[in-house]
Amino acid sequence: MSKYCFGIDIGGTTIKMGLFTEDCELFDKWEIPTDKSNKGSNILKDIAKSIDDKLSEENISKDDILGIGIGVPGPVNKDNVVLKCVNLGWGVFKVGEEFEKLTGISNIKVGNDANVAALGEATTAGNSHYDDMVMLTLGTGVGGGVILNDTILAGTCGAAGELGHIQVRFDEEDPCGCGKKGCLEQYASATGIVKEAKRYLAEFDDKTVLRNIENITAKDIFDHAKEGDEVSLKLVDRLGMYLGTACSHIASVVDPEAFVIGGGVSKAGNILIDNIVKYYEMYAMEPLRGKPFVLAKLGNDAGIYGCARMILK
Amino acid sequence: MSKYCFGIDIGGTTIKMGLFTEDCELFDKWEIPTDKSNKGSNILKDIAKSIDDKLSEENISKDDILGIGIGVPGPVNKDNVVLKCVNLGWGVFKVGEEFEKLTGISNIKVGNDANVAALGEATTAGNSHYDDMVMLTLGTGVGGGVILNDTILAGTCGAAGELGHIQVRFDEEDPCGCGKKGCLEQYASATGIVKEAKRYLAEFDDKTVLRNIENITAKDIFDHAKEGDEVSLKLVDRLGMYLGTACSHIASVVDPEAFVIGGGVSKAGNILIDNIVKYYEMYAMEPLRGKPFVLAKLGNDAGIYGCARMILK
Repeated sequence: MSKYCFGIDIGGTTIKMGLFTEDCELFDKWEIPTDKSNKGSNILKDIAKSIDDKLSEENISKDDILGIGIGVPGPVNKDNVVLKCVNLGWGVFKVGEEFEKLTGISNIKVGNDANVAALGEATTAGNSHYDDMVMLTLGTGVGGGVILNDTILAGTCGAAGELGHIQVRFDEEDPCGCGKKGCLEQYASATGIVKEAKRYLAEFDDKTVLRNIENITAKDIFDHAKEGDEVSLKLVDRLGMYLGTACSHIASVVDPEAFVIGGGVSKAGNILIDNIVKYYEMYAMEPLRGKPFVLAKLGNDAGIYGCARMILK
Repeated sequence: MSKYCFGIDIGGTTIKMGLFTEDCELFDKWEIPTDKSNKGSNILKDIAKSIDDKLSEENISKDDILGIGIGVPGPVNKDNVVLKCVNLGWGVFKVGEEFEKLTGISNIKVGNDANVAALGEATTAGNSHYDDMVMLTLGTGVGGGVILNDTILAGTCGAAGELGHIQVRFDEEDPCGCGKKGCLEQYASATGIVKEAKRYLAEFDDKTVLRNIENITAKDIFDHAKEGDEVSLKLVDRLGMYLGTACSHIASVVDPEAFVIGGGVSKAGNILIDNIVKYYEMYAMEPLRGKPFVLAKLGNDAGIYGCARMILK
């Protein structure tokens, strides 16, 4: 009899759900809305119902489910306990225990969303398989995940892989969302990239096509850099410096096989990778140089793949 | 029948040897000189002979040896292969295989000396037992070790825990021994601390008792800071800033239970810890704050304890 598992990636707006074969092939995927009413108390019930429906639809018995991996938008400690999910209205919450009661399925594993995405990218076809890798996700914020021995490093407080809050500038006066000043996220998130561009344009008066754009986006900056706009090139170079610096710190701590760069900003492609590598090679000590930096490949599916991988080693 | 293991810490001058009970109690310790002639080709033979002698002396059979842990002054990858030990004259070297041939004892584990010292401090009575910790060793250089799940994190190139080469200054003009500029080691090693003091004294003309000392040592600076000398206090504060910064980076990556500070410089005691904590709390993101920073307790025995711990989980 074939065996299956579920990978469930809970976001603030939608819950991405995947049914996987025991070889970690995606068999089916779908989404349900995230009901954040009543402090998120319906979320797990909705997921349990959707799982039941899918099992009926596909005529699969619960006995053939190897387990369920769940990704949540908040810190999860190494004992599978969710410490807080502000977006969902959750406080400290033993999600695994609760979900086992609701579904009757044991072997529930829970991870932070950025961490499970990293596990998905590390271990799933499309990328080389990396036992030990670090992923940086450059989106609205900057997240990350550290994978060691095919396993998420959660950390004592569920805060391992909080790579967006590595400090890369010491003279920053504006605070980061986390309260610190000079965090990587302030320069390498989509919003941070735009903010840095606006700062540059206010400070200097070089001619650049960026001055003609009303609402500059990170994509504009990369696009114009690719077309040779000097200021855009400078901005991408500086972004590479911040990311290369952070990656050199990370490498000195965990010495991974590879770095994977994901999130919306990574759609910029090789120009981003090349600028990170330029500074990484400058700042990393000799034995740590030459590591592959690759673009993430799974996009929005990275989370459900990683959730499945928590079950299917 | 009682079981035993050996912990062997190979240094550039002496080899520290320990015979441990299966409960990781130190039963006997002694040293032999390191013979670096002929590219270090006698080292393992000398150790094997010393082990044989000890077994005869104590009337212990080889069948009662659970294994041998060996620390070496160079990078060791996660497959137990020594990649280079400049100080010993070794290149890439499968020390475990070779040593098994010489001794007839299997279960040989090899680790980098700073890493095994970290494992010793993490897991051995005298400290609280930390499953996940990071040790910084402040000596002639700055080394480190990352312990996760009671295990050394070796890294892909044996360079995990190379914490002395995290860059903490971006405007440094003098190169570090590693070739980079602005490494933690340039400010937080015993020599770095003295160099920073000399820089300060050349740049400023504040009155300080340090100006009366011919050959300033790191100890002088700590001693005068404890007595209230303003310049010494400033220097120790700045040292705390560099170390606190590096520890905040490290925490964002691996989120350990605790930091342990060892090496000769750590003899300064609480004044050092207090100044590191001051800046760590400023630079670490909120969930990572409040971690214990403790002084190492095993001194020069940390290595042999850690070597034994590689065998006795």
